[in-house]
Amino acid sequence: MTDRYLENLRVGDRFNSGTYTVSKSEIIRFADAFDPQPFHLDGEAASQSIFGGLAASGWHTAAITMRLMVTSNIEIHGGLVGLGVDELRWPKAVRPGDTLQVQIEVLEIRPSRSRPDRGTMRIRSVTTNQVGEEVLTMISTALVPRRGEHH
Amino acid sequence: MTDRYLENLRVGDRFNSGTYTVSKSEIIRFADAFDPQPFHLDGEAASQSIFGGLAASGWHTAAITMRLMVTSNIEIHGGLVGLGVDELRWPKAVRPGDTLQVQIEVLEIRPSRSRPDRGTMRIRSVTTNQVGEEVLTMISTALVPRRGEHH
Repeated sequence: MTDRYLENLRVGDRFNSGTYTVSKSEIIRFADAFDPQPFHLDGEAASQSIFGGLAASGWHTAAITMRLMVTSNIEIHGGLVGLGVDELRWPKAVRPGDTLQVQIEVLEIRPSRSRPDRGTMRIRSVTTNQVGEEVLTMISTALVPRRGEHH
Repeated sequence: MTDRYLENLRVGDRFNSGTYTVSKSEIIRFADAFDPQPFHLDGEAASQSIFGGLAASGWHTAAITMRLMVTSNIEIHGGLVGLGVDELRWPKAVRPGDTLQVQIEVLEIRPSRSRPDRGTMRIRSVTTNQVGEEVLTMISTALVPRRGEHH
């Protein structure tokens, strides 16, 4: 099992997740808890909406993306601790039965100036469905521990 | 009940949500499903982590924020349909028992050039805990229907 520190990452590195299939009942359950709007709760109502059919909440897609990132092969020492997200987009809705997968690309590596034991990585994550359509894209910054000279 | 269209919104308008109290079991249940990392799952492991104690997944905080926005008094006609998010930040962790609330401020209103029946609003949302500390801030863009001249 890999255990990656800041020194083990390079700009341009790419990582991949496994897959995650979203059921209709999970879409409805998430929406009922966190995004209770007709187009996420009820197929009939959704068909009359701008989505044209039942669609997962964008926050559900984001949560699934996080699960796929955490369980991907990026395997940062100490885990994935997000500091912030920029440019979170949902180019296409997630539908019942869709199978999602995430690709991560390292955009930037920055050692901390004040703390020799850590740094940050800026990454781009792209979540696609089973036919390769992008359903979520985001650029985020995460904390990464640094082995540094104190080891 | 209000039913707001683009014409009913002004830059600087502010809206408020109700409150939402997050239990320890809900924090663990969400993390188990979407962000299975020790500092979101187990108090003992969390106390040894950078969080210094059990903390909600940032995506859980985001999902709760969405629920509070959807059920707030902004009441956009047709619902809250997000197009994208910029500058999503988690200044402070959410802890078991925290009670969250959201304030929304309208930053920008933009009618669509090509579609007379719609436009977008850019809003800033700030989620605070029971002592007023900010736990999530974001700037997002949402679709808003326009009454327009076709009515």
